[in-house]
Amino acid sequence: MTAASPTDDARLRAYAQLVIGAGVRLREGQELLVHAHLDHAALARAIATEGYRAGARYVDVLYSDPWLRGARVADGPDDVLGWTPPWMVARLQRAIDDGAAVVGISAGSDADVFRGLDQARLARARFVDFERVWQTGVMEREMAWTLIAGATPRWAQEVFGEPDVDRLWDALGQALRLDEPDPAGAWQRRLDELDARARAMTERGFDRLRYRGPGTDLEVGLIAGARWLAGRAHTRDGHAHAANLPTEEVFTSPHRLRADGVVRSTLPLALRGALVEGLELRFAGGEIVEVRAREGEDVVRGELATDDGARRLGELALVDDSSRVGATGVTFRNTLLDENAASHIAWGQGFSWVLGEDPPADPAEHGVNDSAIHTDFMIGSPEIEVDGIDARGAAIPLLRGGRWCDARS
Amino acid sequence: MTAASPTDDARLRAYAQLVIGAGVRLREGQELLVHAHLDHAALARAIATEGYRAGARYVDVLYSDPWLRGARVADGPDDVLGWTPPWMVARLQRAIDDGAAVVGISAGSDADVFRGLDQARLARARFVDFERVWQTGVMEREMAWTLIAGATPRWAQEVFGEPDVDRLWDALGQALRLDEPDPAGAWQRRLDELDARARAMTERGFDRLRYRGPGTDLEVGLIAGARWLAGRAHTRDGHAHAANLPTEEVFTSPHRLRADGVVRSTLPLALRGALVEGLELRFAGGEIVEVRAREGEDVVRGELATDDGARRLGELALVDDSSRVGATGVTFRNTLLDENAASHIAWGQGFSWVLGEDPPADPAEHGVNDSAIHTDFMIGSPEIEVDGIDARGAAIPLLRGGRWCDARS
Repeated sequence: MTAASPTDDARLRAYAQLVIGAGVRLREGQELLVHAHLDHAALARAIATEGYRAGARYVDVLYSDPWLRGARVADGPDDVLGWTPPWMVARLQRAIDDGAAVVGISAGSDADVFRGLDQARLARARFVDFERVWQTGVMEREMAWTLIAGATPRWAQEVFGEPDVDRLWDALGQALRLDEPDPAGAWQRRLDELDARARAMTERGFDRLRYRGPGTDLEVGLIAGARWLAGRAHTRDGHAHAANLPTEEVFTSPHRLRADGVVRSTLPLALRGALVEGLELRFAGGEIVEVRAREGEDVVRGELATDDGARRLGELALVDDSSRVGATGVTFRNTLLDENAASHIAWGQGFSWVLGEDPPADPAEHGVNDSAIHTDFMIGSPEIEVDGIDARGAAIPLLRGGRWCDARS
Repeated sequence: MTAASPTDDARLRAYAQLVIGAGVRLREGQELLVHAHLDHAALARAIATEGYRAGARYVDVLYSDPWLRGARVADGPDDVLGWTPPWMVARLQRAIDDGAAVVGISAGSDADVFRGLDQARLARARFVDFERVWQTGVMEREMAWTLIAGATPRWAQEVFGEPDVDRLWDALGQALRLDEPDPAGAWQRRLDELDARARAMTERGFDRLRYRGPGTDLEVGLIAGARWLAGRAHTRDGHAHAANLPTEEVFTSPHRLRADGVVRSTLPLALRGALVEGLELRFAGGEIVEVRAREGEDVVRGELATDDGARRLGELALVDDSSRVGATGVTFRNTLLDENAASHIAWGQGFSWVLGEDPPADPAEHGVNDSAIHTDFMIGSPEIEVDGIDARGAAIPLLRGGRWCDARS
C-alpha cells in the first residue's frame, strides 16, 4: 500500500521543506518537476505539498518503476532499447524553457530487479534522448535542480541486509542535518564553509593533484586558472540552489588530457542497475586505457564506450572527514551519498563553468572534457593521501588520514 | 513496498494475458500505453511483460497518484487547477497517431483521499486537455482501448470495509471469467452472445424505451435506424477490441432531444473523487432539469455545467442477470464494474457510430448528443421494468425481474 509512509510525517515534512527552501529554493509561480521512484510516493507527496505552499504553479511528479525497465530488457524488441518516448524529452525541455525547478529522488542500485537479465541489453535500455536534455540543462545551468535520496525498503535491504527503512531514514536524516533545529540554516552555514574551502583551493592554483594509497598512484593535471566549486550552484540567470543534498565536496574539472597512473575505487558504485565493485582503472595521457573490476566490469566497459569523452575525466572532488555522510559510517551504495563521504572522480562530461561564470564557447580547447555521460566513483578513504603539486613541482599535503591538513587539531 | 503483489502471480499473469489477447488484442510492433494507479504496479508490470511477449514495441506505463491531485486542490494556485501539462496531451496524441493501444486501470473512488477538500476546487482539478484528446480518440475510434480494474487495498476498504484485497481479487476474477479454463475463449463466446443480443435489439427498431420502478418513470426516445452495440468495439481501421473488461451490456445512444420523466440511481456512483448516492434526475425534452442527490449533489451539478450537451443523454445500456459482475453480489463503487451489473444510462457524449460504420458528419443533427464528458450511472435492478415501445405505441416487455423476457426459463 503505497499510501503508507515508512517514516513519521514530521520528518518527511522537514525534509520536503529543506528540499524546497534550501535545495531548489523554489520561486513563486515556478513549476516544479519531481522524478521519483514508486516507493518514494510519501516523500514525493510531501514535496508536492511544500512546493505548492511555497508558491509552485504546478508540481509534476513522474514515478519511475525499475520493473518496467526490467520487462523491457527481458522481453522487449532489440531495436528500440535505447528509444525515448518523445513526450519525456518534451516534458523536460519545455519545463526548462519555462524556468522550472527539478528535484530528482534516488534510492538503491535496483540490482535486485535486474539480476539474471542480459547485462549488455540492460546497459542499452536507457532513455538516451532524455539524458541528453538533462545533461545539457545541468551543464548549461539552465535550471535549478536538486538531487536527493529517499529511503525505501529495497534500498534498506541492500544497505543493511534487511528492509529496515527506519534505520535508513535515521542515517539519511543525520547526513541531511535534519537533526538540527534549523536544517535550512545549518545547510547555508555548511555551504558557506564549503565555498570558502573551494575559494582557497582556487587561490592555491595547483598544477596537478596526486593520489596515493592502496592500489592508487595517480596524478591528474588541473586546468590553469580553473575554479574549484562547492555544492552551492547558480543557474545562468543567477539563482543559487544546492544541486545535491547532502553535499560535502569541493570539486573542479581537471584537464582532459592530463591523467596518468592507476586508481582503485574505495566504495561500490551503483551504475545503471548493476553494482560495480573493486574497480581499477589505468590512465595514460588523460585516457582510461585499462579497466578491471571484481564485479560489473562489463557495465563499466559499456559506459566507457559511449563516446570518446567517456574515457576521460570530467571531475575531481575532495571530501574530508567532517562530512556528515561519512560520519554515519554507512556505505549507502548510492553515489549521491557515497560521493559525499569520500573523495571521488568522474569520467565523462566536465563543467564548463569552472572556467568562469561566462565560460568560453570552446571549453574543450581549454581542457574541459566533453561527453554524453558523467559518472562519479569513489576513490577516497583515510588511507589515501592527496597532495597538491605546484608549478615548480613542490608537493603540498592536502588530505591525510581523511582530513584537510590545515584543519588538523 | 510496491514490489509486492497482493495476489498470486498466476492470476495476474492470466489477467494480463486476457487484457493483451482479448482486450486490446495487441498487434506486433504496436506501442502500448498503460494508465495505472500507483497501487496497480504489480498488475501494470504483468501487463508490460505480456505486452512485450505479444510483440509490443514499447510499453509506456504512466502511474497516477490521487494524493498529488489532493495536494494541488489543497494548496495549489486557483488559476491553473484545470491546466494540463502539455506533455500529457502530446503523449496520448502521438501514440494515437502512431496506432497505439491503450489500457486504463481503474480502482475505487479515491474519496478517502479527497475528504475535507474544497469540492468545487476538486471538481475543477482535472486534466481538461488530456480528457479532450482521450474523448476524441474514443469517439472517433482512433485507438484500440480497454478499460479494466485492478484490486487495491484502499478500494477493498471502500467495498468491504476492510482492506481485504484478496477478496476483491476473487470477486474481480469471477467477473473477469478468470476462473474459466480459457478466459480469452470464454470472453469471445460472451461477446458473441452480446453481439447477437444487440443485433436483435437493432432489428426490433423500437421508437423508445420506458423504465419503471421505485423512483423511476422515464421514457427515452431512440434514434430511428440507430444500432445497438455490445462490448466488442472496432477501431476505424477495423481492428476488433473489447473496450471494457468485463463487459455485459448492450447499448445505444438515444435521441438527445427525447427524454421525459424521472429516474433514480440504483447504485452509488464514484465521480471525480466523490461518491454520489441517491441520485434523482428529472428530464424534460431530453434535458436534465432537476438534480437531487443524498450525497455528492454538488459534484453532479458541476459536471452537468460542463457544456450544453452535459445535461442530455449519450447512452442507454441494458444488462440482465446473466452478468458475471452481478453474480458476484458485490457493489464495487466503480462504474466499470457496477455498470456491467445493472442497466445504466449516461449523460454527455453519445456515440456517432451507432449511426453506422461510416457515420454522417453531423451526428448531432441525427440526434446523437455532443459533450466533452460522458458519465454512466446505474438505474437498473430486479425491480426496474424496461419496455420497448414501438412506433404504434405498443409496449413490449424487455427486462423483468432483472432478466431478458425472451431468456426466461
